Amino acid sequence: MSEVLKIYVLNGPNLNLLGEREPDIYGNLCLEDIDDMLKEYAKKNNASIHFKQSNHEGELIDFIHEASKKAEAIIINPAGYTHTSVALLDALIASKIPIVEVHISNIFKREEFRHNSYVSKSAIGVISGFGIEGYLYALKFLLKKLV
Amino acid sequence: MSEVLKIYVLNGPNLNLLGEREPDIYGNLCLEDIDDMLKEYAKKNNASIHFKQSNHEGELIDFIHEASKKAEAIIINPAGYTHTSVALLDALIASKIPIVEVHISNIFKREEFRHNSYVSKSAIGVISGFGIEGYLYALKFLLKKLV
Amino acid sequence: MSEVLKIYVLNGPNLNLLGEREPDIYGNLCLEDIDDMLKEYAKKNNASIHFKQSNHEGELIDFIHEASKKAEAIIINPAGYTHTSVALLDALIASKIPIVEVHISNIFKREEFRHNSYVSKSAIGVISGFGIEGYLYALKFLLKKLV
Amino acid sequence: MSEVLKIYVLNGPNLNLLGEREPDIYGNLCLEDIDDMLKEYAKKNNASIHFKQSNHEGELIDFIHEASKKAEAIIINPAGYTHTSVALLDALIASKIPIVEVHISNIFKREEFRHNSYVSKSAIGVISGFGIEGYLYALKFLLKKLV
Amino acid sequence: MSEVLKIYVLNGPNLNLLGEREPDIYGNLCLEDIDDMLKEYAKKNNASIHFKQSNHEGELIDFIHEASKKAEAIIINPAGYTHTSVALLDALIASKIPIVEVHISNIFKREEFRHNSYVSKSAIGVISGFGIEGYLYALKFLLKKLV
Amino acid sequence: MSEVLKIYVLNGPNLNLLGEREPDIYGNLCLEDIDDMLKEYAKKNNASIHFKQSNHEGELIDFIHEASKKAEAIIINPAGYTHTSVALLDALIASKIPIVEVHISNIFKREEFRHNSYVSKSAIGVISGFGIEGYLYALKFLLKKLV
Amino acid sequence: MSEVLKIYVLNGPNLNLLGEREPDIYGNLCLEDIDDMLKEYAKKNNASIHFKQSNHEGELIDFIHEASKKAEAIIINPAGYTHTSVALLDALIASKIPIVEVHISNIFKREEFRHNSYVSKSAIGVISGFGIEGYLYALKFLLKKLV
Amino acid sequence: MSEVLKIYVLNGPNLNLLGEREPDIYGNLCLEDIDDMLKEYAKKNNASIHFKQSNHEGELIDFIHEASKKAEAIIINPAGYTHTSVALLDALIASKIPIVEVHISNIFKREEFRHNSYVSKSAIGVISGFGIEGYLYALKFLLKKLV
Amino acid sequence: MSEVLKIYVLNGPNLNLLGEREPDIYGNLCLEDIDDMLKEYAKKNNASIHFKQSNHEGELIDFIHEASKKAEAIIINPAGYTHTSVALLDALIASKIPIVEVHISNIFKREEFRHNSYVSKSAIGVISGFGIEGYLYALKFLLKKLV
Amino acid sequence: MSEVLKIYVLNGPNLNLLGEREPDIYGNLCLEDIDDMLKEYAKKNNASIHFKQSNHEGELIDFIHEASKKAEAIIINPAGYTHTSVALLDALIASKIPIVEVHISNIFKREEFRHNSYVSKSAIGVISGFGIEGYLYALKFLLKKLV
Amino acid sequence: MSEVLKIYVLNGPNLNLLGEREPDIYGNLCLEDIDDMLKEYAKKNNASIHFKQSNHEGELIDFIHEASKKAEAIIINPAGYTHTSVALLDALIASKIPIVEVHISNIFKREEFRHNSYVSKSAIGVISGFGIEGYLYALKFLLKKLV
Amino acid sequence: MSEVLKIYVLNGPNLNLLGEREPDIYGNLCLEDIDDMLKEYAKKNNASIHFKQSNHEGELIDFIHEASKKAEAIIINPAGYTHTSVALLDALIASKIPIVEVHISNIFKREEFRHNSYVSKSAIGVISGFGIEGYLYALKFLLKKLV
Repeated sequence: MSEVLKIYVLNGPNLNLLGEREPDIYGNLCLEDIDDMLKEYAKKNNASIHFKQSNHEGELIDFIHEASKKAEAIIINPAGYTHTSVALLDALIASKIPIVEVHISNIFKREEFRHNSYVSKSAIGVISGFGIEGYLYALKFLLKKLV
Repeated sequence: MSEVLKIYVLNGPNLNLLGEREPDIYGNLCLEDIDDMLKEYAKKNNASIHFKQSNHEGELIDFIHEASKKAEAIIINPAGYTHTSVALLDALIASKIPIVEVHISNIFKREEFRHNSYVSKSAIGVISGFGIEGYLYALKFLLKKLV
Repeated sequence: MSEVLKIYVLNGPNLNLLGEREPDIYGNLCLEDIDDMLKEYAKKNNASIHFKQSNHEGELIDFIHEASKKAEAIIINPAGYTHTSVALLDALIASKIPIVEVHISNIFKREEFRHNSYVSKSAIGVISGFGIEGYLYALKFLLKKLV
Repeated sequence: MSEVLKIYVLNGPNLNLLGEREPDIYGNLCLEDIDDMLKEYAKKNNASIHFKQSNHEGELIDFIHEASKKAEAIIINPAGYTHTSVALLDALIASKIPIVEVHISNIFKREEFRHNSYVSKSAIGVISGFGIEGYLYALKFLLKKLV
Repeated sequence: MSEVLKIYVLNGPNLNLLGEREPDIYGNLCLEDIDDMLKEYAKKNNASIHFKQSNHEGELIDFIHEASKKAEAIIINPAGYTHTSVALLDALIASKIPIVEVHISNIFKREEFRHNSYVSKSAIGVISGFGIEGYLYALKFLLKKLV
Repeated sequence: MSEVLKIYVLNGPNLNLLGEREPDIYGNLCLEDIDDMLKEYAKKNNASIHFKQSNHEGELIDFIHEASKKAEAIIINPAGYTHTSVALLDALIASKIPIVEVHISNIFKREEFRHNSYVSKSAIGVISGFGIEGYLYALKFLLKKLV
Repeated sequence: MSEVLKIYVLNGPNLNLLGEREPDIYGNLCLEDIDDMLKEYAKKNNASIHFKQSNHEGELIDFIHEASKKAEAIIINPAGYTHTSVALLDALIASKIPIVEVHISNIFKREEFRHNSYVSKSAIGVISGFGIEGYLYALKFLLKKLV
Repeated sequence: MSEVLKIYVLNGPNLNLLGEREPDIYGNLCLEDIDDMLKEYAKKNNASIHFKQSNHEGELIDFIHEASKKAEAIIINPAGYTHTSVALLDALIASKIPIVEVHISNIFKREEFRHNSYVSKSAIGVISGFGIEGYLYALKFLLKKLV
Repeated sequence: MSEVLKIYVLNGPNLNLLGEREPDIYGNLCLEDIDDMLKEYAKKNNASIHFKQSNHEGELIDFIHEASKKAEAIIINPAGYTHTSVALLDALIASKIPIVEVHISNIFKREEFRHNSYVSKSAIGVISGFGIEGYLYALKFLLKKLV
Repeated sequence: MSEVLKIYVLNGPNLNLLGEREPDIYGNLCLEDIDDMLKEYAKKNNASIHFKQSNHEGELIDFIHEASKKAEAIIINPAGYTHTSVALLDALIASKIPIVEVHISNIFKREEFRHNSYVSKSAIGVISGFGIEGYLYALKFLLKKLV
Repeated sequence: MSEVLKIYVLNGPNLNLLGEREPDIYGNLCLEDIDDMLKEYAKKNNASIHFKQSNHEGELIDFIHEASKKAEAIIINPAGYTHTSVALLDALIASKIPIVEVHISNIFKREEFRHNSYVSKSAIGVISGFGIEGYLYALKFLLKKLV
Repeated sequence: MSEVLKIYVLNGPNLNLLGEREPDIYGNLCLEDIDDMLKEYAKKNNASIHFKQSNHEGELIDFIHEASKKAEAIIINPAGYTHTSVALLDALIASKIPIVEVHISNIFKREEFRHNSYVSKSAIGVISGFGIEGYLYALKFLLKKLV
């Protein structure tokens, strides 16, 4: 039996609130629904999902370090740290595994200060505004690429 | 039998060269392969693809006007006009149908002048760096959203 | 009988949609109504109107070249090319005939990127936000000036 | 007999010099000629003109407050305060009546620091470079709009 | 009996309109209500309020000069002059008495050009967005500080 | 007996040092004195204070999430994170309860990089430079507003 | 007997405080001392000095208009209006007589926002940091130039 | 007999007017004279010239695509598109043949917005201000380089 | 026997990866080697090293607070937080003990966004690009300075 | 007999051409005339002039070092180095003697890049646009100040 | 026999290293080869070449002064001084003879700080990236122009 | 016996004044003391020091050229040329030997215009604010690296 591909899915600050707040923007689904959706797809495709969320920049860096040792790829929604964290960028560059950046809403339609992404400098691809589907496409893309 | 969903897929300047040049960046597939891939998926999902390419800003605007009258959504890879065309943005806003913006490579990793996108201000979602898969995810997302 | 004054009235990208879209902003009248309004006024004032629209930057430049040979003045609503086209500016400067710039809505109240106009550097006057009346005042002004 | 429409016409700093200085730029006519021209037109159209000039930013604000209580619209040529006065902008916004901004010369062809207009953020329309005709068109436009 | 503390309360352009306009933003109370509120509090605390408003930058400067000679502190709501007046700043610095800057609405949530305050460079404290309460807190703070 | 209003008072990085360092700038009082002052006032006004400090951006976000579930308002002194944390701003926006931003010293008089506040974009009011009194006025204002 | 040369000496906001405040920066002499010094020198040189001060931008503009009709030259210390007044610049340009700009302290050593001078664009010369001597040199220079 | 070297010479917007307008800047010669001059030199040097002009950005891109298939080098005078066209740059990069950029006047002496050239990022060399001689030197340089 | 000098050596985000990744840039040595090197030198010089690393901005701030109470100096390599953390700067300023900033690679040769250092505003000295030797020189310098 | 005051008068690049070129801007007098004028005045006032010119930044620095040892003040016209030389600024700061900066033409009316002066940061006063008289006033001012 | 045309060819800092370093960028030829090439061409065309190199900005200025007296034109490769020397620009403007600016490599493809050229503001033409041929074309162009 | 390593130590403008001026910033030691310190260390480590200072940018370039031929490394304190000299940067890049940049004071704590260093783009390492020790550490580092 072939090796299972391990993918870390990292979620940044405030994403633990998903589903509770602003359903018109973010929909009614919560983080667990994303986790379930990804795990279901991963299972059928011989992959495993390690799904994490943190409001702490440092913890997200720790997760990236862990991923760089245990996983084949990272899907990251860096939320508010997208625009301000060089430390996150450095962790992702150091991980040397493929990165995909996901944003639920289209950050390029929002305020000017949300247009810059440090994280993008380390990512193969960026998907923004596809709602929670963005995570699924990120996963599909990585599996296609890695296998 | 239900109505067929019509999707315009518009490709900006230099994309007619796809597959011929820089295969390390853009892969070996050409625009027709993307057209085929999308049509195959559309067919199975009761949708039709209207696939066009132009190096002319004005012609792309004409296509958008046409799409706004005949289609339910637009997938656009504005290529070099992404960063410089307010006219394209205005056409897309006026179309009042859902727009998804696709870039084959990750424009946010490239030169500073490629980081600004006028087109993004009109798009529901942006997908950048997923290679030609980006078109397919854009299509899937729109079909899911429109049906 | 005195010579008839020839005025070119040039309309930029997306103005062919006038009347169809966003009637709250642009009103219910379409380009033909503007053409009629101007021609009616011109006829009474011994002038002729050459009314054109194009979504193509290059075609607008061609029209300007034509105007510089055949007409006494240009009224131009450069729409989305206002803010981005040095080529249009160069054509207008080269025409050596009086230019008036018209915008239906007040561009100075809109997004920051709509505040810069290359075209203004070649115009005697700019009228913005007077709706379709702007064209009429532009015509009146030019006739007064030229006669 | 229908109600007379009251229009305030406000002129900013240095406009009292009109006609005296730089006739090649501003023409030979002075402020009183503009006043006469507007009053003549207003009279025929059941409107009254309240024509004022001040070199004092504060006095212009006072006039705007007065206009907001007594008049149906304001035509303002803010001259040098165009580019620097947030206080004037605030007064105009607070007036809640339609504003038209007039400049005798085309400010968009002049020095960079004359391209920004705070006043424009409160105006329906801006007319620049039409000489003293600009005032007349502003009046016509407002009467058409208000009646 | 101890000396009465004199506080100048200066209100900039358009604040004379308070209560009349935009009650959703500024409330139903007018400047006189603020004056009453402050005087009532001052009376109980052995202080006197000198409450003034002007739309004239120069008059505000005159008031500051007067205050610097007659009063122990200044509360100032510079309104539209906040962002543009170096002259006001210079007057406040020269006054050498404590300054508190008050804004009824939160200027830091508004347009970019309202984020810069020259006046702040001379103020001990800034209070913005507390409605008319801001004046009261400014007074309390100054009395606490001065006694 | 009426319901007790719960207010979270959040203090950002380095504020645990209050009273120990730079007494000429920050006074001799420490965070506990602020806590006591606020609790004393709250008690008399049927409110309760939940006073917290953290040097960790993530922990502050956690506190905001907690507040949004348990409290009626937040008073926040974001200290060094004021100028750099989009994540904190997002948490505050998502909380949907009234926010007041407090700074002990007047940040607008300090270095240029301290003039921008992301947090202000979510706050009803900002009070800066009133020393520890700022907290008390923030509380009074919120109680007045909420009751 | 030869014609007496008339020179207007205009002083901007806060200069009425000269001598009272910050003697370490501005010296112990007041505006009247400057007036006396200039008049004494003028008398000996067949010139007359018209010395004025105002805190009102509009009044300074009025003085400039007056000067342009009655005088042969203007010496102006625009103080805080130096950096912000386009209206003053326009008045000076319109005066068409020689302008010399004087600053008592060296504005180019002070805060960044004091480095820009609109007034300089209309002046033959600028003298900054020579204390009240600056006025005398300005006068000498103008007399030499005009005679 | 050795192979003939094919060189495309592309001319951007408004260059069709050469010779007709502003002879003091651009001289009396027209595009055909340049074509003749280049063909004469090419003929003697076993090269052929494919000389084209268009006012259409898209057509220029088409010409570049054609050149990249049929020619050994491109000489381009992008005129007004120099400063605004990323699409042109992308076409030139994709052509993979040597590019020389020519400007008849010295663009670096003109307005600020003419100092940036996207095209230069793809060119081996840039020649600006040598009049029509610039084309000849570009040709000589390319022939020397290619042979 | 003289007092032992305590030096805190603080290492920011991702430095725990040292030695594992990119040995061509950072060498083969890891953080422990630096710790050993410093301790060996310190021991011989009557000093003690307190060596810490954290990916958490808040924890680094905690360490600085601790150092300010227990140590005589701080050597800090703030890594990714160098460019973005005002909170770290505030902690360092508050510590009131000498700070030396160390970077293993030369940050001034890297991307533009790595050229700004908030931390430098609190440091006596900065050493960048000396590899792990930078730490040793920082220690030597502090010991020389403190003794 | 009292001590003779020594003043260095330093002239920057291209000033050796004075009188030869552009007499409409710089007049017909040459550097020697300035030297003579200053020496004549100095002689009567118990001062001596050390007049030097160099096109070499380094030599000007050498002269400043010499002046700081031998003279009581420096008058400097740094010409083209005004806007670009931090080294010159450092030399002037280190000299610790009073500096006056002179420009023959009014640099604040010229191109934007001539508005910044590094030298001004070290000067007591700046005189610009007074022609060669500027030197004389600088000398008078220094003598008055030093005696 | 007709007069010999004298051309100064000036080479800025580091050009004395030509041929020694980075042959892949600058080729194997050294400055003397350029000198020979130009002299050979000049001789045949009744011109003489005065070829100089200096690493000293001041010496280059001296050469320009000399050229302005003895020569008919200047060819200058200002190297590193291109982007930073206003003094060089002033010397060139003062020379009043035709200037051509040469760069061996294409500076517009290099780092951002190499895109600005002060020297270009004085040059008829600029040639960049043509290797040492650039000098020859500059010479040909000048001879054609001057004869 | 092994080869002696030759190190050039270059000192920029005003450093000849070291020890004479501002001892509180730069200490009491002069350049010769640095020379002695370095030579003493070099001697023990089989290296030789070539210590030079110049106020002339061109002479510093000459020294770098010389070093590139005769030495194994350069230590440079470019002083005021750090921030303004592209020519120095080019010389250092061309030298192809290791460069270390030294600043006696911490330039990153000083004025904004001292934060940019062109020289850093060519240096392996930068040491700033370590006083004259900076030179010694630079030497140690280079010797360690080179041997």
